[in-house]
Amino acid sequence: MEKVLVSHLKDFLGKEVTLSGWIFNMRSSGSIFFLLLRDGSGFIQAILSKNEVSDETWNNCNTLTQESSVELLGVVSKHPKKEEYEIQVKDLKILQIAEDYPIANKEHGPDFLFDNRDLYLRSKTPWAILRIRDSVFRSITNYFSENDFIRFDTPILQPTSCEDTTELFGLKYYEDTMMYLTQSGQLYLEAGISSFGRAYDFGPVFRAEKSKTRNHLSEFWMMDAEMAFCDQQKNEDIQEALIKRIIKDALSNCKQELEILERDTTILENLLEKPFIRIKHYDAKKMLENKGFKVDYNDDMTTEEEIEIGNTYNTPVFIEDYPFAVKAFYMPKYTDKNGIERAINADLIAPEEAREIIGGSQREDNYETLLEELKKRNYRVEDYQWYLNIRKYGSVPHSGFGVGLERVVRWISGVHHIRETIPFPRTINRFRP
Amino acid sequence: MEKVLVSHLKDFLGKEVTLSGWIFNMRSSGSIFFLLLRDGSGFIQAILSKNEVSDETWNNCNTLTQESSVELLGVVSKHPKKEEYEIQVKDLKILQIAEDYPIANKEHGPDFLFDNRDLYLRSKTPWAILRIRDSVFRSITNYFSENDFIRFDTPILQPTSCEDTTELFGLKYYEDTMMYLTQSGQLYLEAGISSFGRAYDFGPVFRAEKSKTRNHLSEFWMMDAEMAFCDQQKNEDIQEALIKRIIKDALSNCKQELEILERDTTILENLLEKPFIRIKHYDAKKMLENKGFKVDYNDDMTTEEEIEIGNTYNTPVFIEDYPFAVKAFYMPKYTDKNGIERAINADLIAPEEAREIIGGSQREDNYETLLEELKKRNYRVEDYQWYLNIRKYGSVPHSGFGVGLERVVRWISGVHHIRETIPFPRTINRFRP
Repeated sequence: MEKVLVSHLKDFLGKEVTLSGWIFNMRSSGSIFFLLLRDGSGFIQAILSKNEVSDETWNNCNTLTQESSVELLGVVSKHPKKEEYEIQVKDLKILQIAEDYPIANKEHGPDFLFDNRDLYLRSKTPWAILRIRDSVFRSITNYFSENDFIRFDTPILQPTSCEDTTELFGLKYYEDTMMYLTQSGQLYLEAGISSFGRAYDFGPVFRAEKSKTRNHLSEFWMMDAEMAFCDQQKNEDIQEALIKRIIKDALSNCKQELEILERDTTILENLLEKPFIRIKHYDAKKMLENKGFKVDYNDDMTTEEEIEIGNTYNTPVFIEDYPFAVKAFYMPKYTDKNGIERAINADLIAPEEAREIIGGSQREDNYETLLEELKKRNYRVEDYQWYLNIRKYGSVPHSGFGVGLERVVRWISGVHHIRETIPFPRTINRFRP
Repeated sequence: MEKVLVSHLKDFLGKEVTLSGWIFNMRSSGSIFFLLLRDGSGFIQAILSKNEVSDETWNNCNTLTQESSVELLGVVSKHPKKEEYEIQVKDLKILQIAEDYPIANKEHGPDFLFDNRDLYLRSKTPWAILRIRDSVFRSITNYFSENDFIRFDTPILQPTSCEDTTELFGLKYYEDTMMYLTQSGQLYLEAGISSFGRAYDFGPVFRAEKSKTRNHLSEFWMMDAEMAFCDQQKNEDIQEALIKRIIKDALSNCKQELEILERDTTILENLLEKPFIRIKHYDAKKMLENKGFKVDYNDDMTTEEEIEIGNTYNTPVFIEDYPFAVKAFYMPKYTDKNGIERAINADLIAPEEAREIIGGSQREDNYETLLEELKKRNYRVEDYQWYLNIRKYGSVPHSGFGVGLERVVRWISGVHHIRETIPFPRTINRFRP
């Protein structure tokens, strides 16, 4: 008979199959044993009746513990009313009895769970969250491959930093060179689109982040995309299509996972039906002021402001044209009617307190303007000469954006702390195992 | 009219379209200009007749240089006999004239080209190779997602090393902790499969490699896969299916790219038709000895031996059961009839001098045996306690393998030097831009 995964059982209704996995939970009632088995692809109830198995198998069953590994032989049946399957067990082989598994089916503190992250991964919540992460990853890969983007892996080891230099991890590269772990591949990706037109990277980035909030990881995954011949509005169209694709796939691929997480998916479902909101930074600040916030029109959005914007619209919101002074050197700028320099950019704010999930902008494509800005900000021009040269040899209007994978996964999963969204989180205090 | 990519032109035959891109090459013959345009998705010949465009457009054309950026309006036509398209230009707008582009359509040395990698990327060879890389990436992602694997991103910053410690890049993590850049995510992935059954990672790995051969990069991309309830033969089945999928997709997605690289694809096509060879390490050494090699039966395969094996079979070859002494601590072992301890493993050797492209093995699943081996090799047991624990809480037979992305891309592309297969190569002497 066939060896199958729990997730494929619906194709084997009434058939005899073997399943391998771990005991997740169990209970007995006289002459019946109910085993909850997990095999990585899903969870299934396996039922043993004393009458229908050998004495040896029945006695084996009495030795089972949580996380013991087993192989089952049985027949697949279906719950009469629900989309749930069961196994009527005919034989059970024990691979290993697990002794004293430290994570019981009870409340543990997060410190204990993350100290034992290698084991905590087996619990239902991490299983569900990291499967959603897998779905998000696949949506991104598929969306880009269907839309003429080439994956272009930008370097992790960079000789200079793209943005702020205070939060870099540096290391000695061979004898006497200092190199830094990437915070963004964007600048390299801009060189990439001069060859490929549309390109994206998707890899780990690093921030020596000293804060201990629920929002920060020292190592996380970032997807950067860059498009030649693309202005900021088109850039936002692509971001919107990508986010909708991610949400649509997650809702359809991860029903069970979202149920385990008790995620109310109403807002996610609703956002598929209508365009995202696009408002100017000035108008967003005005709206917040009208609601009683003490806003600074010339500054970034605060945490509270982002949360309020999310709550107000209950759908993702592009906040466009931030004050240039608070944004990166590579953004194009214009002066608004109040005399304030503004970037041609947008941050995408997700609802449900998920805050910023994408940062994007058009890129300055004039050599002289960019050179002037580098000098004004006291950057070492020689470090950026190759980047400037993109504007020298066939400069084109272009735009791009970066998606923080863990931010998106946290939003979709509806979990509180970002550390839940990556297999082995790295923070200022956490770096084992 | 529609703005389209070169790769989509076949859907617009006879239609008027706009195209944006860079001038790759050009020539004129009296009243006709032939422009070779590239837009990242492909290359196209655009033809201007003096009679059919305005004087201004015609004069503009005379100012064009290599890498100048333009927007064209024209009608799509097809070569009467070949699958080649052309544009009859009606209008041309110059975005920017490129001056003194340093890479001419002539021979440059590799040092010059890689010193200007940001520009060299635009040349046809890198364009073709990195598009093959994209295809390989997609094949891997698709294969795993269709075969019940979950993507599981293992940490880049690791507190200890998986294998040899002499080639690690270390860095100061916050105040006083040393962390190391990953050489492999395998150990973490083994914890992952206790939750997900089948998992893979795919990210950058690092090796402080002092050699300067054509085979070595300091930063490269590795895919690790791990499967619960899977022995070494099944492991090899999965590897074989994956490599065939990669080759099949590349042959069908990258026809143009392989043509640019003048790749003879005969061996690639042939390997799809038959099973890969599987031979024991001992028999491979014997075969080599019979061919006149002075072999060491107790050692790894040498470079020359791997090349000869590839040349002998002209298809990928699994070399099974290496002497345990030259392999990693986590492999299960047995003693052969000559009293030699052998690992239950296989390296996959590709033909055409591509050498090893996959290393894989079953994993020791007995706690005591693994503990003993760690001690024998003088590893710090406390660093591996969490890894040992995988064998304590429901141990299962499991196997896995690692694919070096650049090795596979180099083989398929048929290029000589590994640095060609990654956007911005990092070696002992190369770390800019």
